[in-house]
Amino acid sequence: MAFSEFRTLDETTLLDYIISVPSLSSKLDHNLEDIKIKEVGDGNLNLVFIVIGSRGSFVIKQALPYVRSIGEAWPMTKERAYYEAAALKTHGRICPDHVPQVYHFDQTMSLIGMRYLEPPHIILRKGLVAGFEYPLLADDMSDYMSKTLFYTSLLYHSTTEHKRGVAEFCGNVELCRLTEQVVFSDPYKVSEYNRWTSPYLDADAEALREDKALKVEVAELKSKFCERAQALIHGDLHTSSVMVTRESTQVIDLEFAFYGPMGFDVGAFLGNLILAFFAQDGYADRDAYKEWILRTIQNTWELFHKKFVALWEQHKDGEGEAYVAAIYDNSEVQRLVQKRFMQDLFHDTLGFGAAKMIRRIVGVAHVEDFESIADAEKRAGCERRALELAKLLLKEKKRFRDIAQVVSAIQQIQ
Amino acid sequence: MAFSEFRTLDETTLLDYIISVPSLSSKLDHNLEDIKIKEVGDGNLNLVFIVIGSRGSFVIKQALPYVRSIGEAWPMTKERAYYEAAALKTHGRICPDHVPQVYHFDQTMSLIGMRYLEPPHIILRKGLVAGFEYPLLADDMSDYMSKTLFYTSLLYHSTTEHKRGVAEFCGNVELCRLTEQVVFSDPYKVSEYNRWTSPYLDADAEALREDKALKVEVAELKSKFCERAQALIHGDLHTSSVMVTRESTQVIDLEFAFYGPMGFDVGAFLGNLILAFFAQDGYADRDAYKEWILRTIQNTWELFHKKFVALWEQHKDGEGEAYVAAIYDNSEVQRLVQKRFMQDLFHDTLGFGAAKMIRRIVGVAHVEDFESIADAEKRAGCERRALELAKLLLKEKKRFRDIAQVVSAIQQIQ
Repeated sequence: MAFSEFRTLDETTLLDYIISVPSLSSKLDHNLEDIKIKEVGDGNLNLVFIVIGSRGSFVIKQALPYVRSIGEAWPMTKERAYYEAAALKTHGRICPDHVPQVYHFDQTMSLIGMRYLEPPHIILRKGLVAGFEYPLLADDMSDYMSKTLFYTSLLYHSTTEHKRGVAEFCGNVELCRLTEQVVFSDPYKVSEYNRWTSPYLDADAEALREDKALKVEVAELKSKFCERAQALIHGDLHTSSVMVTRESTQVIDLEFAFYGPMGFDVGAFLGNLILAFFAQDGYADRDAYKEWILRTIQNTWELFHKKFVALWEQHKDGEGEAYVAAIYDNSEVQRLVQKRFMQDLFHDTLGFGAAKMIRRIVGVAHVEDFESIADAEKRAGCERRALELAKLLLKEKKRFRDIAQVVSAIQQIQ
Repeated sequence: MAFSEFRTLDETTLLDYIISVPSLSSKLDHNLEDIKIKEVGDGNLNLVFIVIGSRGSFVIKQALPYVRSIGEAWPMTKERAYYEAAALKTHGRICPDHVPQVYHFDQTMSLIGMRYLEPPHIILRKGLVAGFEYPLLADDMSDYMSKTLFYTSLLYHSTTEHKRGVAEFCGNVELCRLTEQVVFSDPYKVSEYNRWTSPYLDADAEALREDKALKVEVAELKSKFCERAQALIHGDLHTSSVMVTRESTQVIDLEFAFYGPMGFDVGAFLGNLILAFFAQDGYADRDAYKEWILRTIQNTWELFHKKFVALWEQHKDGEGEAYVAAIYDNSEVQRLVQKRFMQDLFHDTLGFGAAKMIRRIVGVAHVEDFESIADAEKRAGCERRALELAKLLLKEKKRFRDIAQVVSAIQQIQ
């Protein structure tokens, strides 16, 4: 019997829990004698236990009712586990190769049991800091993003199905509000949780708070984030939400999922790759690796574009209600609407990607890419160049016509 | 005791119903001897009964499970009555001067009891056909639109409150789909319900189905309609959804309400005024009246703009989460974001207004403004000029910087 009310698990009580849940104990082939349980959560929000037995393994993720990295002073609904499980299942059905399987969900305990991503899987961000190349990364991530975003949009759904999903995920509002605060608000005002590499970036952080043109662009992005239910997005698709080996790419941590703008996911991923690029100058001898990151940025967008349009072509006579086949009825008008759609999505991607970069440099949550550069002055230099690019993308996004121009802009700034 | 299951009322069974519902019979001071009941519904969707006694009166609106004007071949959920009652109550709280009071709602019977808008109230469209001037119309409609749109948006709401409303009105999806079909799809393809003043407009209707640039713009508008939950909009704010006297302006028929783009409401109203303008040449001697319509178009937008921005200023330090006061913290940046917001809303208004015009000329539901012109050739001439303007607005909306330029374009075409 599972627990009748919520309690925060530890390595001992989790064992009792597993014994009481057949869908979990069966994963260990009911052999609980030699299992090893280890708490490894290093994110901001949750407990994560790895459970390994001689005949099976899984991960237990439990949501706590506050932001773990801040403490109980920042409460955060544990109901997010429901939305994470729902999104994992939906994205998993759409893209099983890149989403870990869910074995068990317990709403009372705010707990998900799911596939353990065995070694040598590591967090992509750690791989980027270490300088590892992942030859499948662009292909796999463009696969995940094109499929999950296409198949949960009105390009594939009827309005009826779409609004049912939108209504369900409206309930994940606390996590949306967290994003609104830390991505679209705090970096542009004085906030107790903000920090940056001081004193080097003091003037840069102040400049953000004084930049009127930037604030106009950020307001428009925030409106899109809050109002535009375009697809069931991951909602937090940075490079620590991806686990990788050279042969495998797995997307995790979907608790921020809701129906939002597609560009928020694509932008989060590309923006964090750009942060990784600018951080490389803080490490030794990374010229070749920097080239690999730039190629990965370019390939990810170009493959995403190609795959997304291919899915559109494949399903253009299907149930999707955005573009009725009888109206968009020849290849020329089809090409025109696809061009407009993809161009808008590209500009959304640049805007959201830039906003995600900025918040990682002057906001509450920083990234290991820069944090691992011990020399503060050197780190500040890397961060300042990333900030410069982000401001350019945010203010001038409509001047960029393709990803190659973005890569050129990155090269010019470094 | 009210009826235990849905039944379509007639003038006889309605009397039994009223007797069983205290909130209705009390409106007649329980004097049911001399009441008069008359079915007057002339819209597309519902039964409407006027109930008048010697000591009180009300209107009963009952939703039928199909589109009344088409018949049972076009089913339509009667659950729309729930959303209409909910929207009437919300808009009524926000703007009681221009929304009739709800006395009673019965979900089982899909029935709303509400204020009877006594003579000389008439449907605005009939007044426009008759050539009556309404000196308060621009002021009152700008009042209704600015208040209902502002107070149900993220300019006033927290995200939490907003998403609760969005989720609730996602349930009104069948009515949204009806709009998607008749406004954004049918006019641009061959559809059994389409009609137009044939043979005069045959080529014009065909040209719409071949206009690739127009189809790209319509697709973008449709996406906004389906995806952008900006405010609790009326959803069908044409000139037959407004009842007027010289002293009173009352907005009715809110069954299409949902969280959608603000410009859809403002555009519907202005677009239908523009249709009224172009129809005037089908009647005798209306030069002065045409000037009044143009002034009303201009005044409505300008007053709406002024009042909306004033509400924003008034509440800029409130609970609304779109523009956090600590970021938009001085009059210059406040002016910049307001300018961007209102410009985008203006362009949305022109696009949606144009789409609403087009569908009234070549789609399923036509307007009395044109239908009352008996001479088909003359009618077609009026309709063609309206179509020409609508196409211009749809394709070139971003070239228009203010409503005066729109009025000039209208004058040039006529």
